[in-house]
Amino acid sequence: MSDHIYKKIELVGSSPDGFEQAVKNALVRAEKTVRNMRWFEVAETRGYIENGKIGHWQVTLKIGFTLEDA
Amino acid sequence: MSDHIYKKIELVGSSPDGFEQAVKNALVRAEKTVRNMRWFEVAETRGYIENGKIGHWQVTLKIGFTLEDA
Amino acid sequence: MSDHIYKKIELVGSSPDGFEQAVKNALVRAEKTVRNMRWFEVAETRGYIENGKIGHWQVTLKIGFTLEDA
Amino acid sequence: MSDHIYKKIELVGSSPDGFEQAVKNALVRAEKTVRNMRWFEVAETRGYIENGKIGHWQVTLKIGFTLEDA
Amino acid sequence: MSDHIYKKIELVGSSPDGFEQAVKNALVRAEKTVRNMRWFEVAETRGYIENGKIGHWQVTLKIGFTLEDA
Amino acid sequence: MSDHIYKKIELVGSSPDGFEQAVKNALVRAEKTVRNMRWFEVAETRGYIENGKIGHWQVTLKIGFTLEDA
Amino acid sequence: MSDHIYKKIELVGSSPDGFEQAVKNALVRAEKTVRNMRWFEVAETRGYIENGKIGHWQVTLKIGFTLEDA
Amino acid sequence: MSDHIYKKIELVGSSPDGFEQAVKNALVRAEKTVRNMRWFEVAETRGYIENGKIGHWQVTLKIGFTLEDA
Amino acid sequence: MSDHIYKKIELVGSSPDGFEQAVKNALVRAEKTVRNMRWFEVAETRGYIENGKIGHWQVTLKIGFTLEDA
Amino acid sequence: MSDHIYKKIELVGSSPDGFEQAVKNALVRAEKTVRNMRWFEVAETRGYIENGKIGHWQVTLKIGFTLEDA
Amino acid sequence: MSDHIYKKIELVGSSPDGFEQAVKNALVRAEKTVRNMRWFEVAETRGYIENGKIGHWQVTLKIGFTLEDA
Amino acid sequence: MSDHIYKKIELVGSSPDGFEQAVKNALVRAEKTVRNMRWFEVAETRGYIENGKIGHWQVTLKIGFTLEDA
Repeated sequence: MSDHIYKKIELVGSSPDGFEQAVKNALVRAEKTVRNMRWFEVAETRGYIENGKIGHWQVTLKIGFTLEDA
Repeated sequence: MSDHIYKKIELVGSSPDGFEQAVKNALVRAEKTVRNMRWFEVAETRGYIENGKIGHWQVTLKIGFTLEDA
Repeated sequence: MSDHIYKKIELVGSSPDGFEQAVKNALVRAEKTVRNMRWFEVAETRGYIENGKIGHWQVTLKIGFTLEDA
Repeated sequence: MSDHIYKKIELVGSSPDGFEQAVKNALVRAEKTVRNMRWFEVAETRGYIENGKIGHWQVTLKIGFTLEDA
Repeated sequence: MSDHIYKKIELVGSSPDGFEQAVKNALVRAEKTVRNMRWFEVAETRGYIENGKIGHWQVTLKIGFTLEDA
Repeated sequence: MSDHIYKKIELVGSSPDGFEQAVKNALVRAEKTVRNMRWFEVAETRGYIENGKIGHWQVTLKIGFTLEDA
Repeated sequence: MSDHIYKKIELVGSSPDGFEQAVKNALVRAEKTVRNMRWFEVAETRGYIENGKIGHWQVTLKIGFTLEDA
Repeated sequence: MSDHIYKKIELVGSSPDGFEQAVKNALVRAEKTVRNMRWFEVAETRGYIENGKIGHWQVTLKIGFTLEDA
Repeated sequence: MSDHIYKKIELVGSSPDGFEQAVKNALVRAEKTVRNMRWFEVAETRGYIENGKIGHWQVTLKIGFTLEDA
Repeated sequence: MSDHIYKKIELVGSSPDGFEQAVKNALVRAEKTVRNMRWFEVAETRGYIENGKIGHWQVTLKIGFTLEDA
Repeated sequence: MSDHIYKKIELVGSSPDGFEQAVKNALVRAEKTVRNMRWFEVAETRGYIENGKIGHWQVTLKIGFTLEDA
Repeated sequence: MSDHIYKKIELVGSSPDGFEQAVKNALVRAEKTVRNMRWFEVAETRGYIENGKIGHWQVTLKIGFTLEDA
C-alpha cells in the first residue's frame, strides 16, 4: 500500500440544498468516470444569491484517487 | 452584462443553529440595505463554545453585488 | 478579562454524519480533558470516500481555551 | 500627510476589451461616488469564456482612498 | 448575542509616532462615522522612510462592528 | 443550472506578444479537446527573458468547464 | 546542539497596555509550566474595542522550547 | 518554443524509502500515460507513521508537460 | 474508525545528517511520550550554516496521533 | 546546465502606459547592472490613481539570473 | 516620478528594546550603504527568549528604495 | 549579539544528484562572495524532467547572513 500513487482532480459541485449536498453531487458525478476515489479536500466554498437568498451552494473539491497500473 | 461592476463587502453571520444558518442570517441582514446581491464566498468559519458545546457558529462572508449606475 | 491568556490546540474530528457532527465530535472528546474552552476555528475540511460515497468527514479545528493560573 | 487615514474597498471590474480595461471600468464607476482615490491593488484576475473565447475579463481590485475629516 | 451580524471594513491608519499610534489614529477616525466597533485585526504593517528614518508607520486594519437592525 | 458540476484543469499558456495573448493561446489549445469551457482564473504570471528582453510571457490558468452527464 | 528537538505551542496573550505587553503576558504565563523556552513567532495581532478605543490587544504567538530527554 | 502550451496535473507519490523516492515513484507511474513531461513542483510533503517510525513518505507533486497539437 | 479524533502537535527536529534524519529525530523523541502517532506533515524546512556549510537541518513537523478515550 | 545557480532579486517597475510597460521598464533598468537574466515572476500588481484615473501602474517582479563563477 | 524603478531588499533587525527599535536598527544599518530608501514592509516578527523573558526582538523587513540611473 | 542585523538573499541551487545536493550547491556558490552566512530557509522545491526522469532538482533558498558594520 505504501507504494500507491494517487491523482488529484479538482471539481466544483453545486446544489440548492446546502454545502454537504454540493459536495455529494460532485462525488456522484465523479464516480461515473473515476474509479478508486479515496478522499476529498474542500478548497473553496461559495454560493450564488437569487432574490436575496441562496440560490445554490458551490463547493470546490480536490478529489484523490488511486492510479491503477497502466 | 460583461461591463458590470461589482462591489464586495465582508460580513460575519452567526447562529446557534449551524454553519448554513449563520450564512443565511448574514444574507437576511444584508438584504435589508444591499440590492442586487449576486454571490458570496466563505472566508472563515469559527464558533464560540459555551459549557463545552457550540454556542453559536460565526461565518465570515464576502458578498458581491452589482453596482448600479450612480 | 483583558489579561486572559489562551492556549490553542489542534484537533481533527471525524464523523460519517456530516461536517457539523465532525466538529461536535472533536469538542466532545476535547471537553473530557480541557477546561474553559472558548472558541474554535475551522482550519481544514476533508473527507474519506468509500465505495464512491463519503465514508466520514474530517475537520481540523483549532480550539482556544483560557489558561488558568498555574 | 503622515496622519492620513485611508479606507480600502473591494470592487470587481469587467470588460470584454482586456485586463487593463476591466481595471479602468472599475475606477470609472468608483469615481462617481468615491472621492480622493489614491491607489489600487489587483487581488484576483479571472475571465468568463463564451464559445471558447474570452467573453469578458473580471479583475478584483482593492481601492484605497483618503478619508476626509468627518 | 449569538445572532449578531457584524460588518468588517478595512482602514489604513498612519502616524509618525509608532505602530500603536497608527492603529489608534485609524480607530479615532472610524469612531466618527461607525458605531458599535467591536474588534480589529492587523492585516499589514508598513512604513514610509524619509531621510533614512521612519517618516510614518502605516497599519492596515480590518475593523469589525455590530450591524444594527435596519 | 444549480446542479451543474464543473471540472477545473490547469494550463500554462505562453506568447511572445504579451500577457493577454498568452491567456488566449492557452484557451485556443484547450478548446480543441475541452467542451463547455466557462471561466478561467489567473494563478501565476511569469516570463522568460532573452537578451535582456521579454522572450515570452507564461501565464498559468485554471480553466473551469461544465461536466456533461457521463 | 544540532540534535535538539523543539516543540511549538500556540498561546494568545492579551493586555490593555499594548502589543508588546500582550506578548510579555503570554510569556509570563507560559514560563510557569514550560521550561527551556527559546523563541516566539507572532502569528496574529488583534484587539478588542470598547467605547471606540482599544480595550485590550490580543497577540497570537507560537512559542518554541527545547524538549528534554523523556 | 515560446508558444508552447503546458498542462499541469497533480499526483501523490509514496515510498517507504524516502522523500526523493516518493517523487520518483510518481514520475515512473506518470510516464506510462503522459508524454513530454517537463518539470515538477513539490506542493506538499507528508508521511504515514507505523509503530512510531516512518511507514512511507507521501509527496504531492504538480507535473507540467507539453500539450501536443490536438 | 470513522469516529476517531486526532490531535496534532508541532515539533522541530534537527540533524547534521540531512533532511530525512531531522524528521526521524523528531519522531524518535515524540515516540517517547506520544502513543498512536499516525502521520506527519512537513511545515517548514530550514538549516543552520556553520563555516559556509550546513551545520544541521531543522524541519518543522505537524504530527497527528489518535486520541484515546479519556 | 543542471548545476547552474540562480539569484533572484525583487524590483518594482512603474509606467503610466500599462501593466506590461511597467514590467518592461523594470527589465530595462535591471539590464544595466545585471547580466544573464533568465526569467521573471509577477509578485504584485498595483497602481496609483491621479484625478480618478490610473496615474501609473506598479508591478513588483522577482527576476532570476544565472550567477557566474566568482 | 511615474517611471521610477525600485528595488526591494530583505533585512532582519533585532533589538532587546522592542519591536519598533528592531525596525529602526535595521534602517540605521541599511542607511549606511543604501541611498534613497522609500518604504518598508514588516514581513515577520519573532523574538528570542532568554530565562523566560524576551532577550531580543527580531523583525524581518522588506525595504524599498529608488534605483538611480546606472 | 542581540543587535545583529541580517540580510536575506534568494538563490536557486540545482543538482542532478538530489534535493540536498541542490541546497549544498547553492551554498558553495554563495560562500564565494558572501561572508557570515548563518541560516537558510527552503522556499520552493522543483525539478526538471528529461526523458521521464528527474534531470535535476531546483531548490529556491533564502539565505540569511550577518551584516558587518559598514
